[in-house]
Amino acid sequence: MFRTSAFPDCGLQPLTANNPQNRYDYDVVVIGAGHAGTEAAAAAARLGAKTALLTTNLDTVGQMSCNPAIGGVAKGQIVREVDALGGLMGEAIDATGIQFRMLNRRKGPAMHSPRAQADKKAYQNFIKYRIETQDNLDLRQETVEDLITEPIADGQDRLANQRVVGVRVRGDAVYHAPTVILTTGTFLQAIMHTGKSQSAGGRAGEGTTAGLSGALNRMGFTLDRFKTGTPPRLNARTIDYSGLEEQPGDDDPQPFSYLNDAISSPQMACHIAHTNERVHDLIRANLDRAPMYSGQIDSRGPRYCPSIEDKVVRFADKSSHQLFLEPEGRQTCEVYVNGISTSLPRDVQDAMFRCIPGLEKAAIMRYGYAVEYDYCPPTQLWPHLESKSVSGLFFAGQINGTTGYEEAAGQGLIAGLNAARTAASQTPWVPSRQDAYIGVLVDDLVTSGTDEPYRMFTSRAEYRLLLRQDNADRRLTSQADELGLIDAARRERFHQKLAEIERGTELLKQAKFQPETGPTVRGDVYLRRPEVTWDVIAEQVPELASIGREAAEQCSIDIKYAGYIDRQQAEVHKQSRHAEKSIPVSFDYDKIGPLRNEAKEKLTKVRPLNLGQAKRISGITPADLALVLAHLENNSLSQTKSSEPDDNRASSDNESSRPTSSASDSL
Amino acid sequence: MFRTSAFPDCGLQPLTANNPQNRYDYDVVVIGAGHAGTEAAAAAARLGAKTALLTTNLDTVGQMSCNPAIGGVAKGQIVREVDALGGLMGEAIDATGIQFRMLNRRKGPAMHSPRAQADKKAYQNFIKYRIETQDNLDLRQETVEDLITEPIADGQDRLANQRVVGVRVRGDAVYHAPTVILTTGTFLQAIMHTGKSQSAGGRAGEGTTAGLSGALNRMGFTLDRFKTGTPPRLNARTIDYSGLEEQPGDDDPQPFSYLNDAISSPQMACHIAHTNERVHDLIRANLDRAPMYSGQIDSRGPRYCPSIEDKVVRFADKSSHQLFLEPEGRQTCEVYVNGISTSLPRDVQDAMFRCIPGLEKAAIMRYGYAVEYDYCPPTQLWPHLESKSVSGLFFAGQINGTTGYEEAAGQGLIAGLNAARTAASQTPWVPSRQDAYIGVLVDDLVTSGTDEPYRMFTSRAEYRLLLRQDNADRRLTSQADELGLIDAARRERFHQKLAEIERGTELLKQAKFQPETGPTVRGDVYLRRPEVTWDVIAEQVPELASIGREAAEQCSIDIKYAGYIDRQQAEVHKQSRHAEKSIPVSFDYDKIGPLRNEAKEKLTKVRPLNLGQAKRISGITPADLALVLAHLENNSLSQTKSSEPDDNRASSDNESSRPTSSASDSL
Repeated sequence: MFRTSAFPDCGLQPLTANNPQNRYDYDVVVIGAGHAGTEAAAAAARLGAKTALLTTNLDTVGQMSCNPAIGGVAKGQIVREVDALGGLMGEAIDATGIQFRMLNRRKGPAMHSPRAQADKKAYQNFIKYRIETQDNLDLRQETVEDLITEPIADGQDRLANQRVVGVRVRGDAVYHAPTVILTTGTFLQAIMHTGKSQSAGGRAGEGTTAGLSGALNRMGFTLDRFKTGTPPRLNARTIDYSGLEEQPGDDDPQPFSYLNDAISSPQMACHIAHTNERVHDLIRANLDRAPMYSGQIDSRGPRYCPSIEDKVVRFADKSSHQLFLEPEGRQTCEVYVNGISTSLPRDVQDAMFRCIPGLEKAAIMRYGYAVEYDYCPPTQLWPHLESKSVSGLFFAGQINGTTGYEEAAGQGLIAGLNAARTAASQTPWVPSRQDAYIGVLVDDLVTSGTDEPYRMFTSRAEYRLLLRQDNADRRLTSQADELGLIDAARRERFHQKLAEIERGTELLKQAKFQPETGPTVRGDVYLRRPEVTWDVIAEQVPELASIGREAAEQCSIDIKYAGYIDRQQAEVHKQSRHAEKSIPVSFDYDKIGPLRNEAKEKLTKVRPLNLGQAKRISGITPADLALVLAHLENNSLSQTKSSEPDDNRASSDNESSRPTSSASDSL
Repeated sequence: MFRTSAFPDCGLQPLTANNPQNRYDYDVVVIGAGHAGTEAAAAAARLGAKTALLTTNLDTVGQMSCNPAIGGVAKGQIVREVDALGGLMGEAIDATGIQFRMLNRRKGPAMHSPRAQADKKAYQNFIKYRIETQDNLDLRQETVEDLITEPIADGQDRLANQRVVGVRVRGDAVYHAPTVILTTGTFLQAIMHTGKSQSAGGRAGEGTTAGLSGALNRMGFTLDRFKTGTPPRLNARTIDYSGLEEQPGDDDPQPFSYLNDAISSPQMACHIAHTNERVHDLIRANLDRAPMYSGQIDSRGPRYCPSIEDKVVRFADKSSHQLFLEPEGRQTCEVYVNGISTSLPRDVQDAMFRCIPGLEKAAIMRYGYAVEYDYCPPTQLWPHLESKSVSGLFFAGQINGTTGYEEAAGQGLIAGLNAARTAASQTPWVPSRQDAYIGVLVDDLVTSGTDEPYRMFTSRAEYRLLLRQDNADRRLTSQADELGLIDAARRERFHQKLAEIERGTELLKQAKFQPETGPTVRGDVYLRRPEVTWDVIAEQVPELASIGREAAEQCSIDIKYAGYIDRQQAEVHKQSRHAEKSIPVSFDYDKIGPLRNEAKEKLTKVRPLNLGQAKRISGITPADLALVLAHLENNSLSQTKSSEPDDNRASSDNESSRPTSSASDSL
């Protein structure tokens, strides 16, 4: 399936001194080793693709640039999905978490969202070690300066006019590969701002990546600017915790990874402080010195992770905002102040804390700052995150306009998987919207783009009762197994759990219960009652003791929410009838005479792979869809045979494959 | 003694929003948080000085830029001295070492030298945490852009014409302090080289510090260029260890810190590989592409830590060189290849390993490179590491032309101690050459300068039997206590050990032994015999069981080497009679008519603080010294009173103090 190398362990070519080639051959090259890049590289390598992961500094692999935490509402679900697909993030946070909490426990299971504080350095080390020990994967410190492409002859690919063939790195060396994944985070043409002070760099103390923006421009990509920001870090020894509310971890911390039974490491507490009118007055008095308001920054930031100056302006009636003091690790005094991201000048940052009870004497170790960076609007991609115009070039993470480690990881995994599949001439695969938040994520990105840093919410999913954090493995692990993403240990554990669920359900059905009133009922019927829990039943059915916590949870949810779940699944079925109708990749919308010009433009830009995706394009009406459908049906009647090449944009050179098995139609 | 602050915990001034001062007041500001900077800051803070430690990236505090090891011949002795003076390095390596070895065990005790491999990341975390938790010390992420000085009026200081008053950092803020310590490592105007590829930066993936070189030039400092280099790092999984010689740690690993009784963490092994003629031929064939030989680099590198291309050229008859494969930590596959530092182009680096048994398939994770950087020739400093021309400005570490973490740490401690003392209007203190390798180090630097990166050797010390790794505490800890460098726990432990040594010696003297031949002898006499060890004696004197390992070692060495030690001490005494004769700071050598011009020039440049230091200046003859001595004695007869101001270069502004208690005369 993949290229074999004379040096199977390192992908390096034999060299003679007099013929320095400085050429390395891989199946997949990943640029950037953050949350997207590491998942991408690991996924590609798990599939057997010879993979190189290149980063300018090996000491920042898997670094948490902003908050030292993983998960949260909708984000925690993504981590569980990444784990169900064999990814790194769940195991990493389980191994290095210092405080685990299941958010929204009082709400229904669709809203339960795991979140954990990480020991930031330990997390990095864990990720780096996993990368170092992954078969088929070479982690190398390299500065990528350019992308290498070659033209595609007319007719070989209906949309792409060039293909990537590798990257050029500092030191006059070249990595050749049929697929390249860009995960540049905030480093493309990055500028950091604190007050009127500006400096080049994507993270404090680090540089920027200039060459790649030029390469992308040259290749015809549209680039745009986003901004994000980070709060100051304080020294814990200068915080007066005595008056602050403590926020402990859960008593029964739950792991993120389906491979782990429990979290046994000791938990650390966070604390809560509050801003007040004095702080808000101070910020208002200095708004003209805030880069976001002075006009120094005009790119858009993440709406749902606003800076404190944004909060004070947008929620002018609020007299206080919560600040969460999150320790950055077990062996450091650095404290992340969640809720006070800011690019205000340093004197204002200093002065703000003077006014906050508990933080009056707090010493800032790192000042907050905003960072502006290039991203590549993701409507230029197929759902499997390959560029439409440059064959073999994939994008994942913040370069796609998203925010969040979890969103980055999810995309990274999809990009890595599909780069490996592309390199092996296999068809792409992405999960559908009804199977995964990751499916929602990539479909939203490529269909609608985003005009502010994109963050996942449960509300973005049509079927969130199906996309629960507890069942990500049941949604995805079988598919991951077919794709080659998981190992034997995970497969075995998963099948064992499925068997347990089946056995548990069977035992329930056989058990009889006598409620206080009414006739005797089966265990599964009895469990449907709101006041009856698994534990109540298990007390009376000793055989159930052999069913593990996770399997028992699945039995309970299956039974208690059966009505709701069935209804959502019926809805999925109903919606998918038309939605699955696929549209050829190079469908010519201009041919549909009566189609509105706006619809033609938008459909041609997005190139939806099926009617469902077309429907989700903003501004596309039911009438537009009816016209497209009619045209498709006419065509398929009249041109059954000739439409085939349309569907297979790379059949002629057998290099890549049609991106059909996408969003709503693959599953 | 020191400035008191309204915000005792963080040194920040109260601010009002409308009057942003961006001014922070400290007693000592340290620039750079490597091995010199962290020891400097910690030492100053231990003395009670309000200290700021500024670094461009908090994630690189205490980073081991090159080999993941601490100690070695003469260097290990320095670490013991740093520890005896209350420094960080010994405790850090004890806590994070992965392999401990006492080098030269078969030689005499003067040559015993501790060395340990470190878990590089754990070491950094330990150092950073110590800094974060140190009282009086603020660790802040800042980019220093300039030094701020003010002129000193004529007559206030005989030599300095300006004094440092603070530093300016990015973001338009100023740290005010009467003392500033520069520890810029390899970051001043740094350029990295791998083959013909060059890039700005002091460490791979990091930037350079441009502004400070300009500031130093402006202030009249002479700057020069040195180069150093680092070898490639390999992935352990691609090394075939089966044919390589294993190098395990000691069975009884000894701690570096006098605070620790033992090392209990598990030890890891290193391995030894070898270069061969094929490798050497390859290097020779590519010498014209080596920056050191192509003329691309013309600055001098460390002679005793040569690159592999240097070794092949300088030791042309050797057909093989040893390479030590050193793991970089417990949870990483990165392996440091000690012995193959190189800036050859990457294809040659790749090809070299192909020819080395065991490394044929080795994957390079980071390529080796050379780095050129500015240093400030240290003859511009007083022995306590303060600049002669800019009062209050101290230099430590590689900026003084040294190489090695240990040399940096030793200087850092001296600079930190003396910056704090200067800020508190106390006289400087440095250990003498007969009391510490650190004394040898600073005296060599300021007296002779160095025309290549300076590394410590036991041969640099006149009295190395006195400067043993085992007795650094007995040499230095009492003085450290007087200086305020150590805490109560260390003091108590030290006095307990002294008491044990005394009791052990007493018990020995009281014990009687009957040798096989001859009369009964006292225990101490018996122990003098080469074949008799402490353990042999302790078996028969049960009371000796209460004497700890370290105290027993001191008793043994005191007794066994008494003759040699006494002789060296007598020599010290004899030498110090003339050597201690002090020379006024602003002594006018031109007044000595018969003095040779060369001697006048050299003496005026170095400004030795006493005859001993004058004698060590290269090219100064006994006749020159006799003339100076005669002049000094005439002067002291005729001008007993008026010579005093000469000795006190800052008495008028009560800011600083005369650097007399230096090298050979303070002790």
